[in-house]
Amino acid sequence: MKPRAALGCPLLWLLCGPAVSRAAEGMWTFDNLPRAQLQARYGFEPDAAWLRHAMRSTLRLADGCSASFVSAQGLVLSNAHCVLDCVQNLSARRDHVNEGFVARTRGEELRCPSMELNRLEEIRDVSASVTEALAGKSGTDYVEARRALQAQLESECVGDQAPRRRCDLVELYGGAQYQLYRYQRYDDVRLVFWPEYAAAFFGGDPDNFNFPRYTLDAALLRAYQDGQALQPGEHLRLQPRGAQPGELLLSIGNPGHTDRQLTVAQLQTLRALRLPQTLLYYAERRAMLAQYSRAGARQANYAQADLTFTENSLKVYRAQLQALNDDGLFERKRAEEAALRKADAGLTAFDDIARAEQTLRRLYLPYQMLEQRRAFFTPYFKFARDLLRAAAERERPNAQRLPEFQDAALPTLQRRLFSASPLRDAYEETKLAWSLAKLREALGADDPLVQQVLRGQSPDARASQLLRKTRLGDVEYRRRLWQGGAQAVAASDDPFIELARALDAPSRELRRQMEADVEAPEALAAQAIARLRFAQYGRSLYPDASFTLRLSYGELRGWEENGRSVAPFTDFAAAFAHQTGAAPFLLPESWNRARARLALDTPLNFVSSHDIVGGNSGSPLLNRQGELAGLLFDGNRHSIAGAYEYDEALNRSIALHPAALLQALTRIYAAPGLAAELLDD
Amino acid sequence: MKPRAALGCPLLWLLCGPAVSRAAEGMWTFDNLPRAQLQARYGFEPDAAWLRHAMRSTLRLADGCSASFVSAQGLVLSNAHCVLDCVQNLSARRDHVNEGFVARTRGEELRCPSMELNRLEEIRDVSASVTEALAGKSGTDYVEARRALQAQLESECVGDQAPRRRCDLVELYGGAQYQLYRYQRYDDVRLVFWPEYAAAFFGGDPDNFNFPRYTLDAALLRAYQDGQALQPGEHLRLQPRGAQPGELLLSIGNPGHTDRQLTVAQLQTLRALRLPQTLLYYAERRAMLAQYSRAGARQANYAQADLTFTENSLKVYRAQLQALNDDGLFERKRAEEAALRKADAGLTAFDDIARAEQTLRRLYLPYQMLEQRRAFFTPYFKFARDLLRAAAERERPNAQRLPEFQDAALPTLQRRLFSASPLRDAYEETKLAWSLAKLREALGADDPLVQQVLRGQSPDARASQLLRKTRLGDVEYRRRLWQGGAQAVAASDDPFIELARALDAPSRELRRQMEADVEAPEALAAQAIARLRFAQYGRSLYPDASFTLRLSYGELRGWEENGRSVAPFTDFAAAFAHQTGAAPFLLPESWNRARARLALDTPLNFVSSHDIVGGNSGSPLLNRQGELAGLLFDGNRHSIAGAYEYDEALNRSIALHPAALLQALTRIYAAPGLAAELLDD
Repeated sequence: MKPRAALGCPLLWLLCGPAVSRAAEGMWTFDNLPRAQLQARYGFEPDAAWLRHAMRSTLRLADGCSASFVSAQGLVLSNAHCVLDCVQNLSARRDHVNEGFVARTRGEELRCPSMELNRLEEIRDVSASVTEALAGKSGTDYVEARRALQAQLESECVGDQAPRRRCDLVELYGGAQYQLYRYQRYDDVRLVFWPEYAAAFFGGDPDNFNFPRYTLDAALLRAYQDGQALQPGEHLRLQPRGAQPGELLLSIGNPGHTDRQLTVAQLQTLRALRLPQTLLYYAERRAMLAQYSRAGARQANYAQADLTFTENSLKVYRAQLQALNDDGLFERKRAEEAALRKADAGLTAFDDIARAEQTLRRLYLPYQMLEQRRAFFTPYFKFARDLLRAAAERERPNAQRLPEFQDAALPTLQRRLFSASPLRDAYEETKLAWSLAKLREALGADDPLVQQVLRGQSPDARASQLLRKTRLGDVEYRRRLWQGGAQAVAASDDPFIELARALDAPSRELRRQMEADVEAPEALAAQAIARLRFAQYGRSLYPDASFTLRLSYGELRGWEENGRSVAPFTDFAAAFAHQTGAAPFLLPESWNRARARLALDTPLNFVSSHDIVGGNSGSPLLNRQGELAGLLFDGNRHSIAGAYEYDEALNRSIALHPAALLQALTRIYAAPGLAAELLDD
Repeated sequence: MKPRAALGCPLLWLLCGPAVSRAAEGMWTFDNLPRAQLQARYGFEPDAAWLRHAMRSTLRLADGCSASFVSAQGLVLSNAHCVLDCVQNLSARRDHVNEGFVARTRGEELRCPSMELNRLEEIRDVSASVTEALAGKSGTDYVEARRALQAQLESECVGDQAPRRRCDLVELYGGAQYQLYRYQRYDDVRLVFWPEYAAAFFGGDPDNFNFPRYTLDAALLRAYQDGQALQPGEHLRLQPRGAQPGELLLSIGNPGHTDRQLTVAQLQTLRALRLPQTLLYYAERRAMLAQYSRAGARQANYAQADLTFTENSLKVYRAQLQALNDDGLFERKRAEEAALRKADAGLTAFDDIARAEQTLRRLYLPYQMLEQRRAFFTPYFKFARDLLRAAAERERPNAQRLPEFQDAALPTLQRRLFSASPLRDAYEETKLAWSLAKLREALGADDPLVQQVLRGQSPDARASQLLRKTRLGDVEYRRRLWQGGAQAVAASDDPFIELARALDAPSRELRRQMEADVEAPEALAAQAIARLRFAQYGRSLYPDASFTLRLSYGELRGWEENGRSVAPFTDFAAAFAHQTGAAPFLLPESWNRARARLALDTPLNFVSSHDIVGGNSGSPLLNRQGELAGLLFDGNRHSIAGAYEYDEALNRSIALHPAALLQALTRIYAAPGLAAELLDD
């Protein structure tokens, strides 16, 4: 499975447009498609109608995946792994995660307590006004002006349409271009079909980011509006034959984050500090969660989603570090940088960034621990901070608020805050105790902030104390604090609120420094570099990923590795052949029972050469006719290095074949109605 | 605490002598002391009598620490952390680990089930015969010739004195010098005094490798021979006043392993592959053990020693990776290398090593998992492999055996095999299941070796199956297999024996490749580089650490960091002030009860500028009079970078003050007899 969007570096701005693209490389915006390459290589060019159809049929899951409408009645197709959180939240009484879920009537469809779909409606270029508003500014001035402008643009764009409309100011090519993306928001999203975990995650962590592969990583949702199934107007028709080897396919989705334009200094910080620290954090977290899970089936259930997410992240970061430890990559990046430096000898941008990186190195650990909440691995603390800060921020003019509390962001925030997802205190205590120990380890036992958090107690004792007294597990209490605003929050003696309050000033200060002393100078420098790049390479550039709509082209194709050919398809027969009798290589009972009824040579998964990254999970692969010929759910191991560069020889995305979904629905899950809906024009 | 010896890279030979030493830098052999520096800086030079006294009074703990005789009746002083394994093994009925242990009579002293002391008796230079025997050899020939020679030299040296004598062939200056070290072995070692874990490890992992520090990391043992307390002839007298700031002290101990002479290519492999992989392994292992420990006091007890060791290793590797991620270090190493390359333009050694490192990268993961047993984190597998291989190897002529099964090594092996240390199956199963999952992760689920190990089962199920059926937990069964030799082992259907048998050929093949294609060419290349270095720098060089006797000089002194002065001493008052009421910042009851009786301004710990490394734990610090003025037990964080280079401004070792030990024995532990024995001439 692919990671959700923007795992890489949630705070830092994406940096400027990449170098000239090669081969199937590129995550292209709809206004700058690689038409010449497509014509030359495939004799195909999408026309306006094709693009409109693609744009209106596809969706973004706000928490970090892609999806598409696949029926006229609002049926939505995405990956099972993108929907795991929802299914887990719906599994309080019945274990849908492991037993699977099929709604045989509309009435059986269950609302996901916390899910938001976005359909892109319009893109507006606002580069001129942004450039004007930020001219001559730096440091805190720059950050504040940018924030105010973002608030103003987004809130004007939403107008009186909240909460149905969402607008995001998007920075492209490192700030050489700014665009306002306007989305339709759907927050009544219901679960229709989810295969058992054992089928969706067959091969588990061992097979993740590997191919050959044998999973049914698909789920169906339905969007509702005013209590009725949505009629989306446009949707993708399933092409049951999928595609042929060598056939052109176009991926339409929302790649989350790439770092292809980072400077050498930034890559060095990633290699020396950010990735190793992050990896160690996730490695320990994985082992902690895995050992917790061994205590019993109940515990395993509680930890399942966190563990899956953590293992996925761990694999991503591990492969990214490996990519950065390839000396060839640094040589190529150094050469690119030298060429740009030569093109403008007076450019200080690279040195400005190197200086800012020194500041980043100094701030990194406390910033991650406190402001990014690595020290508090529990939703309780997030509830507390969000309530505390929202109360304070909502009293300020919209333009002066932190971005996550501006009017345009409030619907999403409220959806998360008031979701009734159950919390299990023994589990939360384990996670919190662990992360508090990480805090002490990172900053040292004598650090005043650590002492303020632990109050002279062990991480275990302090976690237990916090959990014993908090009321934030109660949705109604959270709602009361939200509605009561600053006064209610100030009056609360909830221990998590008290903790968030005690840390708020130092934590905000770390963020201020990070924004003013790292982000702002790096954004300015990146703009200068981007302008230079534009001057050199013009429109042959594509911007780094930004969790916004992109098109990648490529073809269904295997690859060669260590002198071995990897075939592009797997089928149901191979899935059964790979069962070992034990998880994660154990197919669910439903599959084993259905085995005799299945056409075992039906293709299951396949690979293609698309340039994709986390956030693309759930992206449809469209053929020239605009039909859905595959459902992306992962990339091979080499695709992870795609954070820094794309290699057509090795980089492969992994997709589910449409025929596999149809066969599963009809012959395994006894859901012919859903199959018919998918095939219905 | 310092790591035990040679954690860094257990297989690869230590590489060639370092560059010219600066300041207090250097771990000097007794035959090549920095006399000029000592004279110039301190007006002192140890004479033959001083050195003989130092050598005969000091010891090596065979499992990886240093120690010294501190009474005429065989009393031995080392660190508490060096003795933790023994105390844990003795804690089956009573929790000495946490309650402490004081033998008030000889009769109460308890034999450590598995401990070996070595006193160095003689060093003989055998460079000429080794050079002659290896001349013109490479690859497997080189490995086998070296192995045969080692067997012959060591076994001739032991003669008919086994098991009381131990001889080690030691490679110095990367093979420019070979010496035979002859030791007296003592394996009847009894526990006399061990403070509570809470006192020995006060500050725990958070304070480890940090200063200021407040621990009593000391333990007393007694060496016995023929059932009688040993009279060692020479011992160190305690100097209760310790030393003054600026005073010269000489550390006598056995530093385990340094990597100061690695080439840039070797350092790159460490930075890109070996350290990250090792760190991730230890990070997960730590979290797994910590989470296991949370299940209850019993589980915490089982895991205590493994957890302490793992946390210590993790900290070491983390700081080592940090040191290698300092671009300055690579620049300095590149410059040194360029100078040597320039001195001999025809030298191929650096390129030979770079080529061998490519092979190392390819072999690394399977080699670590199988031959180095990372896949099998339980003593059961080690028992099985040792029994299996010993049975096969003992049938071969001594000179053709793997080194660990040559006659000279058998006493140590048997001591470990037949130690009655209790094993707890639920704990072993947890560890084994975890490490089997790491195997599958490292090599992939489809790897034939992985499939051979797991037999289609999950790591949990397979671990449980192995543990359920094994009899290797029974010392008598292990002894029977040893005595029955190849026939008995071949007839055994113990599942661990079967597993070791199935993996033996591929595992030996990995080792053969690592030795023939990495070690051998790197050893030859390192010799060439060492010869060049000798030609350039002569006797101003010291060899990389090799867990053999060394002298480091330095002075009692604090340091400056981030504009802040770190004072050299802490005292008992500060220890009490640092209690937080929760472990690891909670002193034992004995201390809190004794508080009113203590002279709180008695110095407790102090720092000095000695160049030391893991293996130096337990080293005495001698003053000019040859008295014991401190007991080394750790280094500050900067000392870990000492694996690659020494920085006098920051690198500090951490020691226990003699007055602290005396006060603790008399006023906390009511052991005036021991204090008197320490002070008795």
